[in-house]
Amino acid sequence: MKIKMLLFLAILTLGMVSCKNQASQEKSEVANEKPDWVIVIHGGAGNITPERIPPEKEAEYKVKLAEALDAGAAILDNGGSSLDAVEVAINIMEDCPLFNAGKGAVFSADGINELDASIMDGRTMNAGAVAGVTTIRHPISAARKVMEESAHVMLVKDGAEQFALGQGIEIVDPSWFYTEKRWQSLQKAKQREAEKKADLTKKSGTVGCVALDKHGNLAAGTSTGGMTNKKYGRIGDSPIIGAGTYANNNSCAVSATGHGEYFIRNVVAYDISARMLYANMTLNEASNEVINHVLKEQNGSGGIIAIDNKGNIAMPFNTAGMFRGYMKPGTEAEVFIFKDK
Amino acid sequence: MKIKMLLFLAILTLGMVSCKNQASQEKSEVANEKPDWVIVIHGGAGNITPERIPPEKEAEYKVKLAEALDAGAAILDNGGSSLDAVEVAINIMEDCPLFNAGKGAVFSADGINELDASIMDGRTMNAGAVAGVTTIRHPISAARKVMEESAHVMLVKDGAEQFALGQGIEIVDPSWFYTEKRWQSLQKAKQREAEKKADLTKKSGTVGCVALDKHGNLAAGTSTGGMTNKKYGRIGDSPIIGAGTYANNNSCAVSATGHGEYFIRNVVAYDISARMLYANMTLNEASNEVINHVLKEQNGSGGIIAIDNKGNIAMPFNTAGMFRGYMKPGTEAEVFIFKDK
Repeated sequence: MKIKMLLFLAILTLGMVSCKNQASQEKSEVANEKPDWVIVIHGGAGNITPERIPPEKEAEYKVKLAEALDAGAAILDNGGSSLDAVEVAINIMEDCPLFNAGKGAVFSADGINELDASIMDGRTMNAGAVAGVTTIRHPISAARKVMEESAHVMLVKDGAEQFALGQGIEIVDPSWFYTEKRWQSLQKAKQREAEKKADLTKKSGTVGCVALDKHGNLAAGTSTGGMTNKKYGRIGDSPIIGAGTYANNNSCAVSATGHGEYFIRNVVAYDISARMLYANMTLNEASNEVINHVLKEQNGSGGIIAIDNKGNIAMPFNTAGMFRGYMKPGTEAEVFIFKDK
Repeated sequence: MKIKMLLFLAILTLGMVSCKNQASQEKSEVANEKPDWVIVIHGGAGNITPERIPPEKEAEYKVKLAEALDAGAAILDNGGSSLDAVEVAINIMEDCPLFNAGKGAVFSADGINELDASIMDGRTMNAGAVAGVTTIRHPISAARKVMEESAHVMLVKDGAEQFALGQGIEIVDPSWFYTEKRWQSLQKAKQREAEKKADLTKKSGTVGCVALDKHGNLAAGTSTGGMTNKKYGRIGDSPIIGAGTYANNNSCAVSATGHGEYFIRNVVAYDISARMLYANMTLNEASNEVINHVLKEQNGSGGIIAIDNKGNIAMPFNTAGMFRGYMKPGTEAEVFIFKDK
């Protein structure tokens, strides 16, 4: 009788454990269910603290980030492509003086705005980039034309502009990109340089977007004005496939922002994909390892946004803040600026 | 007694097996002994067949490849750095009209020679690159100055030239790069384009060098004129760190040659390193996988040269031929052009 009782208890316990496991498994499956579509954006990483961004400015940034997310999300929700969503979201940030891309880009040492951008299609693995352009209103759209309408990946300077013009890309007078704030930043940087003081120029500030569409296709894009007071035709990581931008349907889509030279040397965007494919890391593990260990140990400041092919997202940065946000079906845009909000 | 006999035989057999193992291990260790230094070069991959390269031309190429190897080897044998060896070997090929780099570079659609180069130091992981330069005799030397004397990795066009001039890099008249053979190639390419015939332009032809020095440091460099009849400021993989050039003392040094757009999209040079570090592939496995599977399946033609940090070398290509060679202590330069010789 005692044995039967024990057996009964044992079966009961096993049953409960089994039920609990099933429940937690279901919960975990629900939590990890692949969303129909996902969009993530950034507007640059850097020394972005509540002390430097007053509440009214914070609100301005958040409104614009949400606007860019909403525009991309509308395309994705309608069954549009991740490439279209990436381009549209970036176009909105390129037109906004708050960000260092398109209108509002920083000035080079020559007092001009030299813009770089790149885009990659995770389905075809095709890619396009422009660098050092000064008259293209939306460099990300020019990069997309390079990808889709040329046999090349990367076009630079006036050659890239000539190509864009032939493709019907909107050309503007260089004064379109002028903002008083960025002009003053250049003057300050030049003054510090003349006084041989340390360069306090922000090495970051760039916009980017990654998206997963209903067809399971990933895309990534990045657009920037580069570094204030940059010289000698310097090109950072933003227009370099593998460094600032990478997308592959087998792994993830990544857009980076930060001190570009570190991102080039560490082939950051591709490294995240490679760690997923070859070292079986999750998107979170791979991006945290690259941003918070590899780069941090080299004092390479910045961050990335990424989506894997299951719709998981990552937005690590090793700076004080990063303008960022994401959106999934059935939710409002979630936007953040500082470490925790 | 029988048992003792069997025991004796068993011990004897075990001893023999053990000795044999030791012997084969020793042999394998001797075979894999790390050489004091190694240098490998390439002068471009492509449709290089005995039918297209008559014996006297073949001899010319082999003499020049051996000369470049000898110059780099002399530095390495004297305890010099892999960076110096890479630069000197590439300088020799840049000055030689046989190769598509420096003097003898192909012409762009505008009838000028636009040169790209990059270099990477596997010890510091620092890197430098110039792209679209038209007056720098030795673009690889300018790339090295970018790496060592600037805060940047990549400088393009006239900005890069201005920087090089300030660094005492030799500036030449653009006519220095002119060769009748390449000029005629451009005319032919333009004629075929006008007649809307298929582009037969060779997508390859570049020079590169990788070296391991006595101090265990790896370095890689690549220099090119790009593609005949290239337009719109097109930049290929050669000046892109991770695509055409990569070096890391923890894994390998790689220099690529081929249809650049494929090498950029596949982040070829870094991918070989990533497969070694994350997927535990050998240098041979990693480079064969990338060149003979990943690229071949995309019709991405070309090849790479590489050395790992143990001094193993790899020189795979998926084209008819690749100008290539290597040298180690105590041997003559070994040079090859076609598949098997």
